[in-house]
Order: sequence, then structure tokens, then C-alpha cells
Amino acid sequence: MAQSEDSSLWIAPDPDAVGLTRAVEGYDHTGAKTSLAVVEERPLTLFLNRQEIVTMMTIGDYPEYLAVGYLRNQGMLSEADTITAIDYDEELETVVVRTADHTDFEDKLKKKTRTSGCAVGTVFGDMMEGLEGLELPQTPVHTSWLYSLSHQINRLPSLYLSAGAIHGTVLCESDKPLIYMEDVGRHNAVDKVAGYMLRHGIPAGDKVLYTTGRLTSEMVIKTALMGIPTLVSRSGFTAWGVDIARQVGLTLIGRLRGQRFVCLSGEVRLVRDTDPAAVAAEDPKHRRKSARA
Amino acid sequence: MAQSEDSSLWIAPDPDAVGLTRAVEGYDHTGAKTSLAVVEERPLTLFLNRQEIVTMMTIGDYPEYLAVGYLRNQGMLSEADTITAIDYDEELETVVVRTADHTDFEDKLKKKTRTSGCAVGTVFGDMMEGLEGLELPQTPVHTSWLYSLSHQINRLPSLYLSAGAIHGTVLCESDKPLIYMEDVGRHNAVDKVAGYMLRHGIPAGDKVLYTTGRLTSEMVIKTALMGIPTLVSRSGFTAWGVDIARQVGLTLIGRLRGQRFVCLSGEVRLVRDTDPAAVAAEDPKHRRKSARA
Repeated sequence: MAQSEDSSLWIAPDPDAVGLTRAVEGYDHTGAKTSLAVVEERPLTLFLNRQEIVTMMTIGDYPEYLAVGYLRNQGMLSEADTITAIDYDEELETVVVRTADHTDFEDKLKKKTRTSGCAVGTVFGDMMEGLEGLELPQTPVHTSWLYSLSHQINRLPSLYLSAGAIHGTVLCESDKPLIYMEDVGRHNAVDKVAGYMLRHGIPAGDKVLYTTGRLTSEMVIKTALMGIPTLVSRSGFTAWGVDIARQVGLTLIGRLRGQRFVCLSGEVRLVRDTDPAAVAAEDPKHRRKSARA
Repeated sequence: MAQSEDSSLWIAPDPDAVGLTRAVEGYDHTGAKTSLAVVEERPLTLFLNRQEIVTMMTIGDYPEYLAVGYLRNQGMLSEADTITAIDYDEELETVVVRTADHTDFEDKLKKKTRTSGCAVGTVFGDMMEGLEGLELPQTPVHTSWLYSLSHQINRLPSLYLSAGAIHGTVLCESDKPLIYMEDVGRHNAVDKVAGYMLRHGIPAGDKVLYTTGRLTSEMVIKTALMGIPTLVSRSGFTAWGVDIARQVGLTLIGRLRGQRFVCLSGEVRLVRDTDPAAVAAEDPKHRRKSARA
């Protein structure tokens, strides 16, 4: 819990980066003029080779990681695909991921397009397919790590602390936060972590993924497809998210705040090495308010 | 502020409805077994006539309203299109919206599909297009309504209060909540409100839309396309959301909690008829915690 706060993060939010926030003028409840730092949000259209895939809303800090992570987490890029280039055009608001060969996904899309006119709806089926036969490693998770991670992440400089209205996702190893990404949507933040891991060959089996967002089916599927055996959140969960976690043997922990949490799946891997009574309640000033979350 | 709490809502959440929540077992921070009510989440694949459009994750309470509202808010259905049937198949998890004639959107999609293989990315452009030349009515908004709405909505029975991890959107007229929808994603809740309004011919120009979710570009665009001149949220906002609100003359109010709020756009329409000092701070037990939001 006493880990130094200028921890050895590999990649961290830069709240002062130009273009991620902007001062916006408004009037408060007393009628006084006020100026607030507000996060930016811009469209980014993703192409896989010549195939247009989707337009995402993002803060725009890591378009390349976002692009690769999205494609991988949606099952559109497989391990067999070799990425030859990622071309980001800031002015056109596009990012193109190029592969050495045509991807299976492009072929499938072409076939599907011929029969039904479009293929938007297939994406979800593809994601579920990727889970079949998936077995996550039985990596233990110490409750002391959870408490320490929550304490550290709440205090790390972030766009959330400086402007709010943003989600954060952090890849961790035991009690060390390593990759901290933020974005307008919680899915983008996870996809950027996935993109970073893929581009830098980071192993997943010994990691813990921490997120500020809810544990929906999509978040659980993404985490499982990334090969990370533990997913932790400050927020709640959906019934289907829990079902999928149980199906793939993922340790799922929700509502982690102060000394409290609830483990919905994979409890057997939890090492309870901390007495919750010895953990301080969360300082209100570190609470993520839904007004900002 | 003293309005009766069994208000005359036209449509309200039913926290006890079968199939919307489920008891899920877990272990809490002390290691004790616990059982929680958790919201369901299920896929729903939407078709416009024979065209597959998207697979959405929803609690599943109003598939017909969700389908129509989504198509309308995405600019895929116009006022000129006559809906002849909406077929929901619970087992197949599909909903098909049928129109008298081929829609412009289907034609556009077919053309786009021929040239680029798919049309997912066009949707956003279409939504922005719909805003061109849009002028919202100059309906005044009393601050007393805002305080009263916030107070009432926090206390109305809801899936949020019983299970959490869900967003709510409420269509209001002055200080009266009329249509209260909840869903896993904030966009679904708004789309269900839009679907209800469309199916029942509810005028929009005199209404206020209240949401628990953040005021992103997409939320502001949807509200504007629905013709509602005021959008209010407990949560924060993005810079682009504010830009769009100013462009279309929408009154945008964020971070409404207790006596506090901030007006980012359309302040000229705000009638400050309440002294904020006379408004009680929000009772912590009515606060939406991000652990649940």
C-alpha cells in the first residue's frame, strides 16, 4: 500500500498534453461565469486494408494502439495476421491498419456482404466464437494487490482527475500498474491497452486488468480474448458479464472501493492476504463521482 | 419540489419485472457468500426490412421502441417512411422494422456497399448531416424544474435503485417526468424514449430530456434530432458535445446534483426562479455511485 506514487508506469495519462482537454465556458448554478477543463472527443474512422470498419469517438491520444487493439479484440485480426503498417492521418481522422495478406475477416465480410448487404451484426458472433475452448491460466490474485492498485490508481495524475467524464483502464502485474489508458468510452481504453500489449509483445497470463467502467459482456469478452485472467472494476456488472467470466474461468471482481469488493467468478484463485478491516475506507476526494464518470 | 412521488408517469421502470434482473451469487470482501440482484443484458439484432443493421446489448424490456428509436436517431428512418410492422422474436433475439417502401437508407447502403464493401462508418456522417439547418424552439427552462426533476427521479423506483449498473433517461415536461427508460447503455435508454415518442406522436419542442449519462457528442446529436431543446445530466460532458449543443441552440446542463449544475449552452433560455441556497444538498443515499453507474 505504501508503494511510491511516481510508479514505474510504462505508459501513463498526460493530463497536460495539448489537444486532450479544452477550456469551456459556462454558467454555474449561481449564474456566475465559469471555465472548466473538458475532455476532447473526436471521430476516428478505422480501415483494415481497404475495408472501412467503424467510426469511433476517442480523445485521440493513441490512434494506432486503439486501431490494432480494436481489430484484435473484435476478432478481426488474428495472431496469424502480420501487420505491415499503421497509417494515421490526423487531418482526415482516419487510421489504416495494413496486413501482409488479406485477412480472414475481410474474406468473411465480403462473403457476408454478398448475401445480406452488410456485416455489422456479425461482429458480436465473431467475438463469442473466439471464446470457445479458451482457458485462462490459473494465476492467483492477492487481495493486497487489489487494495494497493485501487489506492495507487486513484492518485495517479489523469485526465479523469483534471477534467472528468472519462474512463480509465490499467494493465497491472501483481500490485504494479504498468499501462494506464483513458478514453471517452471504456471500450476504447481497453482496446488501447490491448493494442499496446500486441505491439510490444507483452504477455497477458500473469496480469490483472483494472477498469473504472462497468463489467458488461463486452468488457469481459475483450479481457478474455486478451488472455488476461483477472478483471477488476470499481463499478458494477451485468448478469451476462458474470456468466461469460464463469464460462472462461476469469476472476471477476466488481465494486472495489475502499475495503469493499465482490468477487463474482473465479473466487478460488483469490488469496485473501489482507484483513479488510485494516484497509482504510476510500477518501471521498478520490471517489469517482458519476457526475464525472 | 413537493410533487407526489407516485407521479403520473406514462411509462416507468418496473424493477420487479421478470427477466430484467437475476440473483447472482458471489463472495464479498470478508469472504462471505452473498447474493445480489444484477441487471440482465442480452443481444438484440436489428433489421430494417431485409437489411441487418446492428446487434445491440439491451436489458430487453422494450425491443420495439428501441428498434424504432435507434433507426430514427441514426437517421436511417425519416419522417417520410411509414412503418408497417415491427416484428420482435424473443427466441431468435431479433427485431425487424418493416416499412411500406424501401428506405433511402437501404438504397444508400446498397450503393455504399458496392463501392466500399460495407457501410458501418457512414452512420456517423448521416447523423451529423441531419443537424444541418436544424433550429430548436426557444422553450424556456426554469431552474425550479431542474431541481424538482432531479429530486423526483432520484426517488422513483428503478432498476438502478434495485440493482445498479444501468443508465436512465427521462422525458420531462416542465417539472413532470413522463417517460422513464433504463438500459445497460445510455444510448439505448435515449433511443427507447425516442421510439416511444415516435410511436405515440409525442411532441418534442416543449420537453426536457434528463439523463444519468455523460453528455457526449452522440447524446447531444440524438437529443437534437429528436427535436428536444433541453438536455440535462447528472454527469459531465465532452468538448464536442458542448460544441454541437451551441451549434443547434440546445440548452445543455451538466453535473446537476443537489443545488449545483453548470449550463454550457443556451444559458439565455434559463429562468433562474430558485435561489440555489434554498435547495438541499443531495442526500448521499440518493447519489448515483459510479460503482453502480
